[in-house]
Amino acid sequence: MSSSSAVTAAATRARDASYALATATRERKDAALRAMAEALEEASDDVLRANDEDVTRAEQAGTPANIVDRLRLTPERVAGMAQGLRDVAALPDPVGEVVRGGTLANGLELRQVRVPFGVVGMIYEARPNVTADAAGICLKSGNAVLLRGSSSARRSNAAIVAALRDAVEGSGLPADAVQLVPGEGHDSVKELMRARGLVDVLIPRGGAGLIRSVVEESTVPVIETGVGNCHVYVDAAADLDQALAIVLNAKTQRTSVCNAAESLLVHADVAGAFLRRVIEALQEAGVTVHGDAAFASYDGVVAATDEDWDTEYLSLDISAAVVPDLDAAIAHVRAHSSAHSDAIVTTDQRAARRFVAEVDSAAVLVNASTRFTDGAEFGFGAEIGISTQKLHARGPMGLQEMTSTKYVVTGDGHVR
Amino acid sequence: MSSSSAVTAAATRARDASYALATATRERKDAALRAMAEALEEASDDVLRANDEDVTRAEQAGTPANIVDRLRLTPERVAGMAQGLRDVAALPDPVGEVVRGGTLANGLELRQVRVPFGVVGMIYEARPNVTADAAGICLKSGNAVLLRGSSSARRSNAAIVAALRDAVEGSGLPADAVQLVPGEGHDSVKELMRARGLVDVLIPRGGAGLIRSVVEESTVPVIETGVGNCHVYVDAAADLDQALAIVLNAKTQRTSVCNAAESLLVHADVAGAFLRRVIEALQEAGVTVHGDAAFASYDGVVAATDEDWDTEYLSLDISAAVVPDLDAAIAHVRAHSSAHSDAIVTTDQRAARRFVAEVDSAAVLVNASTRFTDGAEFGFGAEIGISTQKLHARGPMGLQEMTSTKYVVTGDGHVR
Repeated sequence: MSSSSAVTAAATRARDASYALATATRERKDAALRAMAEALEEASDDVLRANDEDVTRAEQAGTPANIVDRLRLTPERVAGMAQGLRDVAALPDPVGEVVRGGTLANGLELRQVRVPFGVVGMIYEARPNVTADAAGICLKSGNAVLLRGSSSARRSNAAIVAALRDAVEGSGLPADAVQLVPGEGHDSVKELMRARGLVDVLIPRGGAGLIRSVVEESTVPVIETGVGNCHVYVDAAADLDQALAIVLNAKTQRTSVCNAAESLLVHADVAGAFLRRVIEALQEAGVTVHGDAAFASYDGVVAATDEDWDTEYLSLDISAAVVPDLDAAIAHVRAHSSAHSDAIVTTDQRAARRFVAEVDSAAVLVNASTRFTDGAEFGFGAEIGISTQKLHARGPMGLQEMTSTKYVVTGDGHVR
Repeated sequence: MSSSSAVTAAATRARDASYALATATRERKDAALRAMAEALEEASDDVLRANDEDVTRAEQAGTPANIVDRLRLTPERVAGMAQGLRDVAALPDPVGEVVRGGTLANGLELRQVRVPFGVVGMIYEARPNVTADAAGICLKSGNAVLLRGSSSARRSNAAIVAALRDAVEGSGLPADAVQLVPGEGHDSVKELMRARGLVDVLIPRGGAGLIRSVVEESTVPVIETGVGNCHVYVDAAADLDQALAIVLNAKTQRTSVCNAAESLLVHADVAGAFLRRVIEALQEAGVTVHGDAAFASYDGVVAATDEDWDTEYLSLDISAAVVPDLDAAIAHVRAHSSAHSDAIVTTDQRAARRFVAEVDSAAVLVNASTRFTDGAEFGFGAEIGISTQKLHARGPMGLQEMTSTKYVVTGDGHVR
């Protein structure tokens, strides 16, 4: 069987499995999730052995250390994956929730009810723990999942999925609710992206290049995630101590994540009081500042190029500019933000109100670090990604965002 | 200027206009809608004159009478368009609605707020009244709209949009909130479908071919609408009088619409009692029945081909089959439905419950005609189309479905 027909066959099995999942009770799904957690713990040695092989090959291939680091599993990380599955079991079931409803004038009863998508395709480059996280979130929301991880994590993912599938089947749900996409290389991904009608939604998680290629090639509807060129704007009326703490936290608390700040804008009125402070603090934290002319007049600041304003560094770098006013700050954000998370620091209520209204990003933050845009921080309990598109879901996606709805219309012989 | 760069320029103007619309108060938007209604009434003669030219050219080109009929405007239809705009003005503003919100454990205030998409592209083949309807719904929901109607309605649409733009501008909103897509032919449509980043969502309305081509070619996110291969399943426990009324209504009350029934399934237990009745009633109403072997044994029934089960006739035709049980009915619907609207007629609560749970369509109806799947019938007040996809919106789309959301996070110097 060619890889492409193997993908279609897998998607067809996922579709069949999705029918059973859609009508599975919460009780059965939660039992499956707990069994998956247990199976993962029992298979911990197998998973770690497979992961060792992946890590060894990656190292032999000269993979950069930070990538190898992402790939590496430890007994603690496997235990964390199991705990994640138990956490999902404890969350409410989104399926069946009545979103709106009522009785129409003619007596027809109308209900809009949450239902699973059906089959979800995940394409990701991240750590192997995404494999278990995504399987858990999809199963809880009643979706069958087709998992396509990084090829460097192939053995790890296979070991994880083998354990999960046994547990799913042992709980009376179809094993094909959780599958790896068969085959390797771009052909099998392409087939997945063209499986419109079999696959209901594709969620790419990874770098900008991966996401762009999925968005452009897929005929299956896509939920775009995660590219974050996030801004912190320090307003004329900012509390500069708060501003300093927020800029440092947003930039340095964790640099490799999409909600880290990549660009700093400072109102001209506070440039004199703030620039030296923030530059020194950032440099002390190891950050390279890529500044406009105003910033670049300070020691150690690198002159920013045009590309810097649009760059998601994911490293200890930040672009920085002085803006003459709030309008210029908003215009800069509109022009360069990836519309993930943008923050204003101000004590001026009118400035905050305007920034919130006029900056059209998934999250707009006032006097808070961009790092708060996160499913766990928002209290969603589980997160499958952060959507930066406007259709369907925007911002952190939890269980609810993994569902569609249908209308149920009940009458007694009603005709028009 | 080539048509393609003209499209990009128009989309850029729409993007700029969308910023003003996003923050416009309901008061201003409603005033604009009422001014648009008035302007349309005042321009009625111009619109009808332009429409006359479109109709004449279509007739000279040998366009089928039913298509010419769709194209033709009357003073009453223009008045209806104006009334439609006033109706939209009377509806609540979806923008700014807080969808969920609360205070997190750390004191951060979190609100998920409805916001406009930004720029909406409409590609449609329908009557010129869609031009005014779409402009009104988009403006009320705070979106700029790029309208691409049928080329046969070009003069009518231009006259309508000219009147609407004057009124929008006179109300203090940017005229470019409502624009026709410049240029003709497929090139300009293609440019619109590739304007990712400038256009936030594309809504195609029309035949299956149009929708398929937009879904396949567009990199802008698409909301798929309107193809309806709708089923009525008459269960063993059906009230056969109700079943007869529902089948007749769903098939014949209006044949050219997406929520008309195209396929009839009858449980074998009631075939003896129901087939002759339903066939005679349908034939009396002028319907050609394309039946399986059981149906085809009756006079005048045409033997169905394999294609019939997947055909959206939009005419006085219906496919019809006898099924051995509820499982077979559900399997048939899953295999052939376009997942728009599917109905069961039954007095058996368990059969109804299973059909509702296991048939995954935008609307599932119990003892009611498929013709009820409609924004007006559902009480939405206005409808821009009926989504048959699972992402973002499913079923009739009103003002609420024309919005996205954003998270507003407010703190007091919060860092992680």
